[in-house]
Amino acid sequence: VKAEYINPLIRATTSVFETMLGCTLTRHDPYLITSHEQEHEVSGVIGFSGAIIGCVVLNISREVAIEATRTLLQETPTELNADVIDTVGELANMVAGAAKSTLDVPDLKISLPTIVTGDHHGIQYPSNVKPIGIPFTCEWGEVLVKCALIEEAAAVAAS
Amino acid sequence: VKAEYINPLIRATTSVFETMLGCTLTRHDPYLITSHEQEHEVSGVIGFSGAIIGCVVLNISREVAIEATRTLLQETPTELNADVIDTVGELANMVAGAAKSTLDVPDLKISLPTIVTGDHHGIQYPSNVKPIGIPFTCEWGEVLVKCALIEEAAAVAAS
Repeated sequence: VKAEYINPLIRATTSVFETMLGCTLTRHDPYLITSHEQEHEVSGVIGFSGAIIGCVVLNISREVAIEATRTLLQETPTELNADVIDTVGELANMVAGAAKSTLDVPDLKISLPTIVTGDHHGIQYPSNVKPIGIPFTCEWGEVLVKCALIEEAAAVAAS
Repeated sequence: VKAEYINPLIRATTSVFETMLGCTLTRHDPYLITSHEQEHEVSGVIGFSGAIIGCVVLNISREVAIEATRTLLQETPTELNADVIDTVGELANMVAGAAKSTLDVPDLKISLPTIVTGDHHGIQYPSNVKPIGIPFTCEWGEVLVKCALIEEAAAVAAS
């Protein structure tokens, strides 16, 4: 993962949470991810394709997912129902979309979100991708953005 | 999910397992997926973008993942190690790549695989996507391909 992918993701995440949810994120130090176990219970995964390929994962706790749904839809879900899943997918989509506009890579495309749930789910990547974790905290709990993007040329060379 | 996406996926999966693994798949009846709980322990997820958007999931048991790795890499892993993860990712990638060539949709792109593990992991999609499951059996166990693709125009209209 190249360092220049990180800042657009930080700005995108901070801006989406502020604008859509009125929620101020505090960023902590990015790190290289070595364990495949997710930190939090819900992940929104968005695939990227084009000159940069891979995915971005928005990994949040049940509490953050529920509070985000409460704020966005004015309802208070008590479990990870379809509205919570749609909210996490939409947040992941907006973060990826905002990062995509800033990255300034021609012909970059993003897929629909896939939402992964489960107390001990793990998300892993091909071994040539070294994902970076960008941790944030907010009043509702913790938010982790994972960047698993590489240049398409590198992906082709490795296969 | 349109019916015309299903046949290319069936042919792609059967052909990849036969060619790469010497493993003959028997197909069973496709069905509309209503539960989000995965059938099997390991999933390879590939994002699609372009005129068709969403993802294809190759969901297999630990046994199938390990036997596929044994066949492809001539080794016998005892757990879901990095080689098994890479094998599942590569199989998902080949199935999606083969389906992409058959679909004949201009400018269709696929992302890198994301591999999800966990005994009770769930993979969900935005509520406007109605995924189809295509179940197969083989000598090693069960293989499930999930198709969660929609036309990009439909995705834009729903958001």
